[in-house]
Amino acid sequence: KPTTSREIEDGNGLSSWNDVASKQAIMAFVEEVTNPESPHFIEEKDRIATFDNDGTLWSEQPMYFQFFFAIDRIKAMSEDHPEWKDKQPYKAVLENDMDALMAQGGTGLLQLVMASHTGLTTDEFERIVRDWISTAKHPTKNKPYTELVFQPMLELVKYLQQHEFKVFIVSGGGVDFMRPWAEEVYGIPRDQIVGSSFKTEYAYNDGKPEIMILPEIDLNDDKEGKPIGIHSYIGRKPVFAAGNSDGDLQMLRWADANIKKSFKLYVHHTDGEREWAYDSTSHIGTFKAGWEEALQKDWVIVDMKRDWKIIYPNDGGNTD
Amino acid sequence: KPTTSREIEDGNGLSSWNDVASKQAIMAFVEEVTNPESPHFIEEKDRIATFDNDGTLWSEQPMYFQFFFAIDRIKAMSEDHPEWKDKQPYKAVLENDMDALMAQGGTGLLQLVMASHTGLTTDEFERIVRDWISTAKHPTKNKPYTELVFQPMLELVKYLQQHEFKVFIVSGGGVDFMRPWAEEVYGIPRDQIVGSSFKTEYAYNDGKPEIMILPEIDLNDDKEGKPIGIHSYIGRKPVFAAGNSDGDLQMLRWADANIKKSFKLYVHHTDGEREWAYDSTSHIGTFKAGWEEALQKDWVIVDMKRDWKIIYPNDGGNTD
Ligand SMILES: [Ca+2]
Ligand SMILES: [Ca+2]
Repeated sequence: KPTTSREIEDGNGLSSWNDVASKQAIMAFVEEVTNPESPHFIEEKDRIATFDNDGTLWSEQPMYFQFFFAIDRIKAMSEDHPEWKDKQPYKAVLENDMDALMAQGGTGLLQLVMASHTGLTTDEFERIVRDWISTAKHPTKNKPYTELVFQPMLELVKYLQQHEFKVFIVSGGGVDFMRPWAEEVYGIPRDQIVGSSFKTEYAYNDGKPEIMILPEIDLNDDKEGKPIGIHSYIGRKPVFAAGNSDGDLQMLRWADANIKKSFKLYVHHTDGEREWAYDSTSHIGTFKAGWEEALQKDWVIVDMKRDWKIIYPNDGGNTD
Repeated sequence: KPTTSREIEDGNGLSSWNDVASKQAIMAFVEEVTNPESPHFIEEKDRIATFDNDGTLWSEQPMYFQFFFAIDRIKAMSEDHPEWKDKQPYKAVLENDMDALMAQGGTGLLQLVMASHTGLTTDEFERIVRDWISTAKHPTKNKPYTELVFQPMLELVKYLQQHEFKVFIVSGGGVDFMRPWAEEVYGIPRDQIVGSSFKTEYAYNDGKPEIMILPEIDLNDDKEGKPIGIHSYIGRKPVFAAGNSDGDLQMLRWADANIKKSFKLYVHHTDGEREWAYDSTSHIGTFKAGWEEALQKDWVIVDMKRDWKIIYPNDGGNTD
């Protein structure tokens, strides 16, 4: 059973963080803006914090975990689709041929996401995600995906919540994919999870209302989609925003445009031993334009290897 | 200054309600589902309440208040649009010719909404709504619109919040129109306000991020749009839903489809003296199919004249 943020005891603060500049900056910011005597005091209603998910709250290598879900789902669905064994991109999935799969490019990947995520009701999809997340394991770490969350970030979420910040996830990942498990794992309510979504359709048959998920993107909650998602779902600019890649730059700029004092944080994946080390040249979580702007504007960059005592909840004493 | 829900003192419960069946049903439900010993106990995270706005939390006659905003805005913009004085539907607005305006039909009204609500940034629109709501008065009641809110419903919102329900507005009205004032007036946080919306576009010029409101509907949060909005923004079915018209029927059915015990409430406008009396034949707030289903399924129907001691906050002792 993974340590979840709800199990983080009150008052332990950011105990998995080394006593480094990033931790000090976070604590100084929170103390300043929650102090009613401070000229930078922020009222509780304005204490909005937005966190990216993939690469910021949990790992995202060798590919987004949601994509492993899509692949597992395609395999499970293949019984009902005998034609898939000769048809790309399904064939590549069924044959575990990652090279052939990557050769399908973005269109092929989108096709897999559509086939695995749409054409069913929201209630059905919820059940499928719940089943998967409670049984699936990461291919190389060999652990449930919910154990590959960053303990120091769970502590940060909790620390902000304890200071009356309202914490949201704003992720390029699918909102219907995150909601079934993220509430429990991160301690962030379902309605505070913003993500990419498909168009839906309401149906009322035999007195039973249902919502069908349609194979058409509604919100692509990445890059410029992040401030759009924030405006749409939250309705005010954040005062705290955290991400790990160029896809978060627009969100961090949106926080930076807040007339109130704001905090911009980037997580830099520097730990090839305990996690993965990647940045400017990685296809997943490219971190180049964001890195340059963060340096220029003096935003906080967390160096995972240097700043964090542990990465995952069970890295510490309580190994499984 | 209107009484807002935040000024409702703790513990006064539903004091503007007569001791009638609707009040008793509400209190019995809340006591049952918040009692951990009850078989119908509902955990806090599942205590989602959704309220329609127009006709449920404030009045909506002789037309939706947002439409008065649109008309005032068209008039204010007309200086920069000399061509409008000869062009419908603007001409009708500028000449205060309601008959000619109504003759423009839905297309004409939509045109007015588009012209008054889009083509500017979200920050600009926020300022315009704030200015309007703090100065405009209802044409016949001659009071600020924020005083035409239903005191018994403010008390109900507060009562639910005190019992750890998370209360949302789910309105056919515009979300960007409600958010600037509804938080303060109703005591419901901005991010818990769901409404109709326009598509938007992110721009980044001279280092300044902005969101432009485009003249294209994104979510029409009425009828079947309400469960869709609820799924999208909240991510779980409500256990308490309140509305006043056929446009809320799909939302009430969505609550009714919750596997947990749920409460469905309709406000019936029966008080032609203190407010307005209308239902099945009214163009605004048509209440016919919803009425029939409510009777058939034993949902609670609040009779405003019979059930409420006062309608508006200042109906009581503290008149202005
Ligand atoms: Ca990311
Ligand atoms: Ca209504």
